[in-house]
Amino acid sequence: MESVGVGLIGTGYMGKCHALAWNAVNPVFGDCPDIRLVHLAEVSEDLAAAKARELGFEKSTAAWRAVVEDPQVDVVSITTPNAFHAEMAIAALEGGKHVWCEKPMAPAVADAVRMRDAAVKSGRAAVLGYNYIQNPVMRHIGALLEAGEIGAVHHVRFEMDEDFMADPKAHFFWKSEAASGYGALDDFAVHPLSLIHTLLGPVSSVMADMAKPYDRRPLSDGGHRPVETFDVASVLLRLESGAAGTLCVSRSAWGRKGRVAMQIFGSEGAILFDQERMNEFQLYRNQGHSANQGFSTILASPDHPPYDRFLPAPGHGLGFNDQKVIECRQLLSAMSGDPAHVIDFEEGLAIERTIHAMARSFEEGRWADVPR
Amino acid sequence: MESVGVGLIGTGYMGKCHALAWNAVNPVFGDCPDIRLVHLAEVSEDLAAAKARELGFEKSTAAWRAVVEDPQVDVVSITTPNAFHAEMAIAALEGGKHVWCEKPMAPAVADAVRMRDAAVKSGRAAVLGYNYIQNPVMRHIGALLEAGEIGAVHHVRFEMDEDFMADPKAHFFWKSEAASGYGALDDFAVHPLSLIHTLLGPVSSVMADMAKPYDRRPLSDGGHRPVETFDVASVLLRLESGAAGTLCVSRSAWGRKGRVAMQIFGSEGAILFDQERMNEFQLYRNQGHSANQGFSTILASPDHPPYDRFLPAPGHGLGFNDQKVIECRQLLSAMSGDPAHVIDFEEGLAIERTIHAMARSFEEGRWADVPR
Amino acid sequence: MESVGVGLIGTGYMGKCHALAWNAVNPVFGDCPDIRLVHLAEVSEDLAAAKARELGFEKSTAAWRAVVEDPQVDVVSITTPNAFHAEMAIAALEGGKHVWCEKPMAPAVADAVRMRDAAVKSGRAAVLGYNYIQNPVMRHIGALLEAGEIGAVHHVRFEMDEDFMADPKAHFFWKSEAASGYGALDDFAVHPLSLIHTLLGPVSSVMADMAKPYDRRPLSDGGHRPVETFDVASVLLRLESGAAGTLCVSRSAWGRKGRVAMQIFGSEGAILFDQERMNEFQLYRNQGHSANQGFSTILASPDHPPYDRFLPAPGHGLGFNDQKVIECRQLLSAMSGDPAHVIDFEEGLAIERTIHAMARSFEEGRWADVPR
Amino acid sequence: MESVGVGLIGTGYMGKCHALAWNAVNPVFGDCPDIRLVHLAEVSEDLAAAKARELGFEKSTAAWRAVVEDPQVDVVSITTPNAFHAEMAIAALEGGKHVWCEKPMAPAVADAVRMRDAAVKSGRAAVLGYNYIQNPVMRHIGALLEAGEIGAVHHVRFEMDEDFMADPKAHFFWKSEAASGYGALDDFAVHPLSLIHTLLGPVSSVMADMAKPYDRRPLSDGGHRPVETFDVASVLLRLESGAAGTLCVSRSAWGRKGRVAMQIFGSEGAILFDQERMNEFQLYRNQGHSANQGFSTILASPDHPPYDRFLPAPGHGLGFNDQKVIECRQLLSAMSGDPAHVIDFEEGLAIERTIHAMARSFEEGRWADVPR
Repeated sequence: MESVGVGLIGTGYMGKCHALAWNAVNPVFGDCPDIRLVHLAEVSEDLAAAKARELGFEKSTAAWRAVVEDPQVDVVSITTPNAFHAEMAIAALEGGKHVWCEKPMAPAVADAVRMRDAAVKSGRAAVLGYNYIQNPVMRHIGALLEAGEIGAVHHVRFEMDEDFMADPKAHFFWKSEAASGYGALDDFAVHPLSLIHTLLGPVSSVMADMAKPYDRRPLSDGGHRPVETFDVASVLLRLESGAAGTLCVSRSAWGRKGRVAMQIFGSEGAILFDQERMNEFQLYRNQGHSANQGFSTILASPDHPPYDRFLPAPGHGLGFNDQKVIECRQLLSAMSGDPAHVIDFEEGLAIERTIHAMARSFEEGRWADVPR
Repeated sequence: MESVGVGLIGTGYMGKCHALAWNAVNPVFGDCPDIRLVHLAEVSEDLAAAKARELGFEKSTAAWRAVVEDPQVDVVSITTPNAFHAEMAIAALEGGKHVWCEKPMAPAVADAVRMRDAAVKSGRAAVLGYNYIQNPVMRHIGALLEAGEIGAVHHVRFEMDEDFMADPKAHFFWKSEAASGYGALDDFAVHPLSLIHTLLGPVSSVMADMAKPYDRRPLSDGGHRPVETFDVASVLLRLESGAAGTLCVSRSAWGRKGRVAMQIFGSEGAILFDQERMNEFQLYRNQGHSANQGFSTILASPDHPPYDRFLPAPGHGLGFNDQKVIECRQLLSAMSGDPAHVIDFEEGLAIERTIHAMARSFEEGRWADVPR
Repeated sequence: MESVGVGLIGTGYMGKCHALAWNAVNPVFGDCPDIRLVHLAEVSEDLAAAKARELGFEKSTAAWRAVVEDPQVDVVSITTPNAFHAEMAIAALEGGKHVWCEKPMAPAVADAVRMRDAAVKSGRAAVLGYNYIQNPVMRHIGALLEAGEIGAVHHVRFEMDEDFMADPKAHFFWKSEAASGYGALDDFAVHPLSLIHTLLGPVSSVMADMAKPYDRRPLSDGGHRPVETFDVASVLLRLESGAAGTLCVSRSAWGRKGRVAMQIFGSEGAILFDQERMNEFQLYRNQGHSANQGFSTILASPDHPPYDRFLPAPGHGLGFNDQKVIECRQLLSAMSGDPAHVIDFEEGLAIERTIHAMARSFEEGRWADVPR
Repeated sequence: MESVGVGLIGTGYMGKCHALAWNAVNPVFGDCPDIRLVHLAEVSEDLAAAKARELGFEKSTAAWRAVVEDPQVDVVSITTPNAFHAEMAIAALEGGKHVWCEKPMAPAVADAVRMRDAAVKSGRAAVLGYNYIQNPVMRHIGALLEAGEIGAVHHVRFEMDEDFMADPKAHFFWKSEAASGYGALDDFAVHPLSLIHTLLGPVSSVMADMAKPYDRRPLSDGGHRPVETFDVASVLLRLESGAAGTLCVSRSAWGRKGRVAMQIFGSEGAILFDQERMNEFQLYRNQGHSANQGFSTILASPDHPPYDRFLPAPGHGLGFNDQKVIECRQLLSAMSGDPAHVIDFEEGLAIERTIHAMARSFEEGRWADVPR
């Protein structure tokens, strides 16, 4: 690849994040093809034009199909609401474009399957936006696990919590509608699952409980409406590796702002991490005199690539958006057919099947196997 | 009560802890009857005599019944292995003594029921050694919850972890034998349950998974023996209050030394605590401008009674053994018929029934109700 | 300004950081003029060409004067070693360019004075790269102080520590030569001083001690060479505001990687911060019942502008390089004559005079006033 | 010694702490002579009698000389205000008693010298109540330093802060009177100095600044009175060992409740500690791959004697008062002529001379040597 033409559909939270990554990937890594920001789609011509100027795109449109059909576009970033992912991603793949799609894939498994099939058929890179796996600290944790630094992992605990739905006085909005999905399960649980998949391998069976902290929420014009989704889920996990553990997620956890916490226990040590302090992790190893054993807090550093591409000094810290720049670089590798550390549509489908198995286990009150 | 005669059966870890408490309770609180350390039992005459001198008891014996029958003894501390609790406690109660018995009550529910019945019949104080509920920080958390400071509690997560069985090379010992109980469930889970009971009320139904990190352990004379107990348990909880959550316990969690952690989420805030830092807790309240909201780390202080009985200065800190002194003071209240913050045999039985329901849910692979 | 042409001299650590900022500033803020990356200078034609491609600049040169004389260039980023700052910055200012120069200004006060004079005469923006003042958390701390949230500040403690010179076995290199300056004083102390200046106002008098942890260092070809600079400095401070405190800096502090810590004590509360956890700070206020008072750990959020320009979600975190993007945005304001939160050459000169007063106090063994 | 008769003068904060220690020392350590609590003095007969009953003493008196003259008393705990220490300690020593005296020795150096001389002449144990040196974690830190685990120490930073005088609205009381001493210097600085002496050796020269956060304080009957003492002090230190550093103390540091913090930097690593979390410390060593280096948080455990005498389980934690029990055990060793880890009157005098040198350096505005 000498150059890469980029299309972008959607410019919200994640759309801007993609655009920042496309702007930064070559200055940061210095080994990429030329990145040309070609075509951007938004819901109106005016908004699209404004955003194109702001984010550095050459052309803009209110018709997203113009992006996936643009011959100058090689790869399409899809950052629209989940309900649109399948149609857009499949159209792009069928148009011969590579696809960088935000997670989760689609509310219905059937759509996720169609997306996976389209990706396989196209032979193009089809990568999901599971950015937490790109944190250099997380990559290093993966390397430690692979090297057996904490021995055989037998028990894990994962949590993902925020508080944007913690206030019972907050008005009913679309995330409380059944149409938006199960709730915290598909909103959050997929993220820890992306970590579990890349660090520990797939989940074999699950047993979930779900809860509604608030049965109903006020409407802006008075009155109330029953809440249809579950802001909290707690899950028992068994992994194919033989390890077991828990996964807890909540959108109503006061005080938690971006917690993605994990505890991994092995036969020779343990590893702790929390995304709210994304530039550090804790390592315990049963080594040396017990009088001096403790969890070491290790700060992100150039020893944890590709941190070194951002900063030559340890402990200075990356940010959330930098993860997306790394993901973008991995996507470019995938587009070139090189090895890439990503969640593609195949693995993304496995993650979503795990979520649906969780919901099933909750409805049936018993363990559910995750279909392969 | 003008004076209290104390008997002690067992002088191991908890036996010494009881003795320290009996020595300290009046100097610390200054409002107790005279405490006379009367009679101590150990497995041999020699050991009993040595320990009596060391711990300040007047008489010693190798026959524990001599203690429960001693007319000078008003209350008996029972700190022997669990298997002996029922016989000793019932004998003491039937002898008209008050009883201070270490947890858990007994391996079999039937024995715990007999203990409860003996206590009811005797009209004596029958108190279990659930010392974590006595931490002044924990008492203050209870007061905050009761005052509604974090609103209605809807979700909780409890953990109790240590690493004394984390090393796979450690020899097989009695805690890996089925005769010792389920494993981490009765060893550890009862402690968080004592907190749940006093802070949040009883558990209504449970769904547990249990795991053996290591299938077998080496024998000291070579060869291996299969492990019969579960060092790890993970449990989904539903409380009578309507709140739900998780309880995770492990005896094989490298790096954890005395972790008893809890996260309590309510409609107006959240509370965090970890016994490894027993002199602080964290409080988040949805109050004031969001730009200045965060978890406050609050240090134990004289504002959290009875910390003030130990120290007039905040932030100087109590220790594990001080909890037992407080428990001892509460026991004295119970003996006088005054209100006391304790887990008595009635509530202790409810806790043990919860443990057995967990084991049942694991065996059956489905939710189990906790019998009342 | 409809568009801004950018020149860059130097592409090392800070040069890349400037380039990343120039690439990101408009996508992040969306309210900037067009940013054109025009001309880049490096020590050789080849390196310059390679870096220009990598960092997105149109032209490259090995002659830095070509950049400051380029009519398409409006602003020049100067990120070369300190010894070159004066010549380059003055040439750029005299050429009518705005200047964005890394700190500190120059080894000699006389040169810093000449830079300040050139800036005044030119009427152009002349901004120094004191990026820690741009952290949204730090801006919020400034707002809290200004609003009197912790009352009148009376005592402060600042620290800046890293360990890149902590190893006594590391070879002698240029930072141990007297020609490089005093040592930790000019390398590090200027950063906390930039925070002191923006948060608390200027320093009036100082009393410093300096130390060499290692008297000599090995040479690569065998033998040793005496160390000529001071890797550690400890300073007593008195501020014009009446507050007092300490400033400690070390380049040989094992375990510290990017510590820039401050403790600010006022009559109504206190604020703590450490750059190693740059996305949080701690606030204590003497408000409410003392039983619930503690340091609140507040995570960076959209409530702390301009965090909101990077991320709509709280607690997700910015990185070190994001601070430079904010600094770049402030520079653009300064170039437009709008209010800007920057350290300009005037204030930078005051900071450097403070450093020299510290060195003087050390040599003379008594307090030194900071000249105005 | 077959048995030890104890006298106690004063039953306030520290008096109670001594009494608790005397009650606990044998049950905890199990290797002490019989401890008989013989005679207690307080300001009135009634108070003395009440406290004697509460704290377990046989006799009580309002005449403190009755205690030091009681032939049944072997050792006298002196916990009265500093102004009385010299007279009482000297009387006790001259009466052939051992002395356990709270710190600091006396407001005037001359009195401290007389106390030291009386101790030398008597040949009795004369021990000061510097309890922070007794923390098992601190003892372990001492062992690590002695073993060279962090190499040669070159830089240290000590802090001791509380907030009991942080409120400017608090009424003027005796601690703001010049008669009470310098202020934070003698109130607090002696404690970090006790750590410096035991861990790192004596201080050779000092340079101090002192500050009054509030010039005047309200009187209870209206009006104000000028504050005569300094609630804050900041000191540059040079140690005889060649290390250097800082010592900062404040009685007006909002949010700090019992902070005694230290940072010790050596050529091979670093150690951090804060008494507010007295059951842990942090150790960094330049060992192994830099990618895995970080500060290890090590919890107090039976590996750190004499923690094992209190608890067999790691991470369960000691409290402030337990330090005094250890100090009491060390005192008993000193009384028997065995090696003891204590600050005796000789070393206590060196500490107080250091304080006075600090005050002198402040008054003179230049470095002051500490007289030997």
